Amino acid sequence: MAPFERHLFVCTNQRPAGHPRGCCDPDGGGTLHKAFKKALAEHGLSRRMRANKSGCLDQCEHGPNVVVYPDGVWYGGVTEADVNEIVERHLIGGEPVERLRLAHGCINTATCPHRPRS
Amino acid sequence: MAPFERHLFVCTNQRPAGHPRGCCDPDGGGTLHKAFKKALAEHGLSRRMRANKSGCLDQCEHGPNVVVYPDGVWYGGVTEADVNEIVERHLIGGEPVERLRLAHGCINTATCPHRPRS
Repeated sequence: MAPFERHLFVCTNQRPAGHPRGCCDPDGGGTLHKAFKKALAEHGLSRRMRANKSGCLDQCEHGPNVVVYPDGVWYGGVTEADVNEIVERHLIGGEPVERLRLAHGCINTATCPHRPRS
Repeated sequence: MAPFERHLFVCTNQRPAGHPRGCCDPDGGGTLHKAFKKALAEHGLSRRMRANKSGCLDQCEHGPNVVVYPDGVWYGGVTEADVNEIVERHLIGGEPVERLRLAHGCINTATCPHRPRS
């Protein structure tokens, strides 16, 4: 087998309640990661693609965050209700789900307008 | 800022001692991840690149494992002594460190000869 055709990293970082940046997995259950794993299995993709837990992806204001490589497509505000659309439209169909994508002006940007000022 | 120019995922998964597949961070200290973070900072790369913790990358027999995206370059058996070479030669110089790369016949391969038979 080759390396994964698509490799998703689902942020499962936790911070204390009330943290100004929030966090992607406030209840610590890894629910979104599990939903992606299940969807990949149901679509018969588990050998070709992988949904990984990741530590903090540092885009917390936009969470829950998911990044898909090698595409380099970042999603924010992802919920379990979005999982099948991402799998079917993007991972299988090759077309990112535009409504969920993070703007380039937000990713990895200290001056992102959504980021709390320290 | 654009998305990270290079995004490293350093496996910090733990398994019980004696597990047949081993694990990438047996002492749970995340030492390798910390070493990459420190090296990126020392090279002034922290805004352009990120070293992330990841959950199990499923190449346990070859660990400690690191995958670099968007390149899709997989490394195995990485130690703290290798960190500066990966940062300087690959992340800055663009040339993967061949001696540490996982073979394509091992990545994501149930029949990898290094994998314990279940």
